[in-house]
Formats: sequence, C-alpha cells, structure tokens
Amino acid sequence: MRYELFYWPSIQGRGEFVRLALEEAGADYVDVARVRGHGLGVDAMLRLMNGAGLARPPFAPPFLRAGRQIIAQTANILHFLGPRLGLVPDSAAVQLWAHQLQLTVEDLVVDVHDTHHPIAMSLYYEEQKTEAVRRAGFFTGERAPELLGYFEKVLQCNPGGRGYMVGRTLGYVDLSMFQIVEGLGYAFPNMMARLAPEIPGLMGLHARVAQRPNVAAYLASKRRLPFNEDGIFRHYPELDQ
Amino acid sequence: MRYELFYWPSIQGRGEFVRLALEEAGADYVDVARVRGHGLGVDAMLRLMNGAGLARPPFAPPFLRAGRQIIAQTANILHFLGPRLGLVPDSAAVQLWAHQLQLTVEDLVVDVHDTHHPIAMSLYYEEQKTEAVRRAGFFTGERAPELLGYFEKVLQCNPGGRGYMVGRTLGYVDLSMFQIVEGLGYAFPNMMARLAPEIPGLMGLHARVAQRPNVAAYLASKRRLPFNEDGIFRHYPELDQ
Repeated sequence: MRYELFYWPSIQGRGEFVRLALEEAGADYVDVARVRGHGLGVDAMLRLMNGAGLARPPFAPPFLRAGRQIIAQTANILHFLGPRLGLVPDSAAVQLWAHQLQLTVEDLVVDVHDTHHPIAMSLYYEEQKTEAVRRAGFFTGERAPELLGYFEKVLQCNPGGRGYMVGRTLGYVDLSMFQIVEGLGYAFPNMMARLAPEIPGLMGLHARVAQRPNVAAYLASKRRLPFNEDGIFRHYPELDQ
Repeated sequence: MRYELFYWPSIQGRGEFVRLALEEAGADYVDVARVRGHGLGVDAMLRLMNGAGLARPPFAPPFLRAGRQIIAQTANILHFLGPRLGLVPDSAAVQLWAHQLQLTVEDLVVDVHDTHHPIAMSLYYEEQKTEAVRRAGFFTGERAPELLGYFEKVLQCNPGGRGYMVGRTLGYVDLSMFQIVEGLGYAFPNMMARLAPEIPGLMGLHARVAQRPNVAAYLASKRRLPFNEDGIFRHYPELDQ
C-alpha cells in the first residue's frame, strides 16, 4: 500500500507526527504537497480538500489517502495507521488507550500553538504578542509541567515496562513523545532545561527514539524539515522566560 | 452493561456529549460524581483518577468505566460507545469518519472554551476579559462561521442523505451537533441569529434531535443541567457583539 500524506510543505506542524510514524515503519508514502508534478504539490492538496468531489471532506490538513479512504485529524490518522504499520499492539482496548494518549498529545500541541497565537490564527504573531507573552507564562509555568508530568507518570507505570508509553515495543505514541520533547526543546529551551530533571523517562525515550535507525536516517535527511517560526514549535525568546 | 460516567457534577461541559449519547440510546448508566453514596460523588472520581491503582490513568474528566476498561477523552469515549449504543454505522471506515467529525467538534469546543479563557484555565474570566473580548471577536467573525459552514457542507453532501451527519440514521455526531447549536445559541445568541440562515441543515437537525423522545425526556429532566457561567458555553454579552 502506497500512502499519500497531504500537509503543508514548509513546516513540520501536525503532519510531522504522521511522517515520523511512516518513516519509522519504512512505509511507502508520498508527501504529496512537497513533490512537483502532475497531481502533486500544494495546489493538488487544496483542490482535493476543497473540491466538491469528496463525500467525506477533511476540514484541514493533515490528511492521508489510503486506497479509496481519506482520513483527517492527526490522531485519527495515527489510530488508522498504527495497526497497519505495527506501531501499536493488536488489542482493541490497548489501541483505544494509545489513541487516548495521542489525543492528550494533541491537547498539548494546541496549547503550544496558542502560546504564539492566543487570539487568532489569522493574525501575525506580532499582532498578538502581548497576549502571547501572558499565555506563554502560564504554559511554561503550569500547563506544560502538568502535561509532561502526566506523560512521565504514564511511562513509569506502563505495566509492559521497558521504557515505552504503551505495551512492550516502540509505537506511534513514543514517536509523538519524541517530537514533543524535541519541539519543546527548540521552542522553550529554558523551560525544558528546568523540567528535564523531572521527566527522566521522557528524556530517555527521546534519546532512544532519535537513535532508531529509520528515525536517525530520516532526521539526517532533507525530508525532515527544520523547525521554523511558521510552524507549531516556534522559538521566541520572550515566550520562554 | 452498566456504564459509569465520571465528570464534574455542576456543568454540562464535555461530559454532556457523552450524556446525550447514553440518554438517546436509553443506556444503563450512572453519572458517578452526581450521586451520593459509598464509592460515589466527586471525591470518588478524583480518587480514581489520581490514585496509583490505574495502569491507564486519564488526564482529566470525562472518563467512562465499562467493565474493567476506563476510557478518557470525549471523542474517544464516543468512538468506543458508538457501535455499542447503535449510534454509528457498522463499517470501520464510516466509524473512522464519524470519529474524525467528532474530533472537529472537539476543535470547536476548544475554541469556544478559549473565548472566555484565552490566557489560562487557572485564571478567572474577569482576569482575562480584555483578551477574551479580542479572541471572541475572531471566533464569532471567522472561526465559528468557518467550522459551522464545514459541518453544514458535510450534512448537505452526506450520500446517505436524510438530514444526518453520517449514514442514514441518527448517530452520536448528530447529538453533538445538537449540543453545539444549543450551546452556541446560549453563549452567542447574536452570532447565531446572524449565522442561522447560512446553516439551515444544522438548524433543522438541531430541532429534530430535540424532539427525539429520549432526548426530549432527558432535556426536560433534572439530569440535564442548565447552561451556566462555569461551563464551556458561557453567556457574556460583551463576547457576542
């Protein structure tokens, strides 16, 4: 099965959680909006999304085409891909639990996004900077420690042990935790320097994921976009006091 | 199967999306935090959530106990309950689509919450009112029309027809759309008066759901909490200009 991923071509963003799963699994996929050619590129993505031809249109990227199915919402895409890529255990109950964790990752992603966009997505950062500074103070002081503390607890009390979030082997939730730690380290280095001692499990998981052969090859490739100030994880020093 | 729902006892909040599904289906359930007695009440909910006994702890209410399984995240609970309560078609692909829509409902719920809490959950509304007015302006002017327009499009292009969001019969996504229209009508009556003509399908769906016998009986009962200014849908006139 060749998967087609549709996401904005110049940022990691939410699409990165899906890319990491596809890369770790060595899946055959096309990152449609990043490739030129007939039926490819951003135009093709927008045409598909906004066209009248879909009975089940996505609201926004990322979305995935798998055969005739089109699936949107990041956590939903991973819920679909997980069993197919061997990145979640077979049990339906465990898959629901992994998905529950991924939805909590998504809550954290929304909070990170809103540190630089607390008022409106349609405004530039500079137009909402005052509010951003105030919101980011609560994010770095309260919300991020609370959510990271929760994920650390989940990691520590996983009965499967071995340092993974779910079950006994690496799965998509672990890849997402890697991206969270990596992204927060880019956007909020002061906060992460302060919090790292409290989340040794997550820091260890982050290091181990980065060393997985497929992940390491991906991170070193041009397919991995660098973080930048158009994405979700943005480094604005005034937000990381 | 007797389900146990755990949610804050004094607000509709996110729990209401689950309550509506349980009520429409005539399911046997206990709203644990709203009942007094041994092993019941808010204390029991917090003890269960924060205790060391759970291998798969929720991050926050609502969560559902179904036998030995505990499931959190509103959309995840509905994804679990949907097939069990007959509130989603049998096909796995359609269930994924319904879940995708529910996650987009959840995006809207986060936006509604952030109109009155754009800075921090730990602050009172009055402490972030200036920012709230600004954010609400973009919500009522841009984001809500965009999301409601999307749901209207989904309703109109459902190949199953008959005025439901997914398939040919009423499901949990329809119940959630009822709650969205109802809640926005309470919180933002001016906005909804303006938008209603653009979303005739959703307005009709809202009216039909309210007349379902089980839903109507629930809405008239004491089990249905009134909207209030502690929940997600709050009526602050200054946010609805």
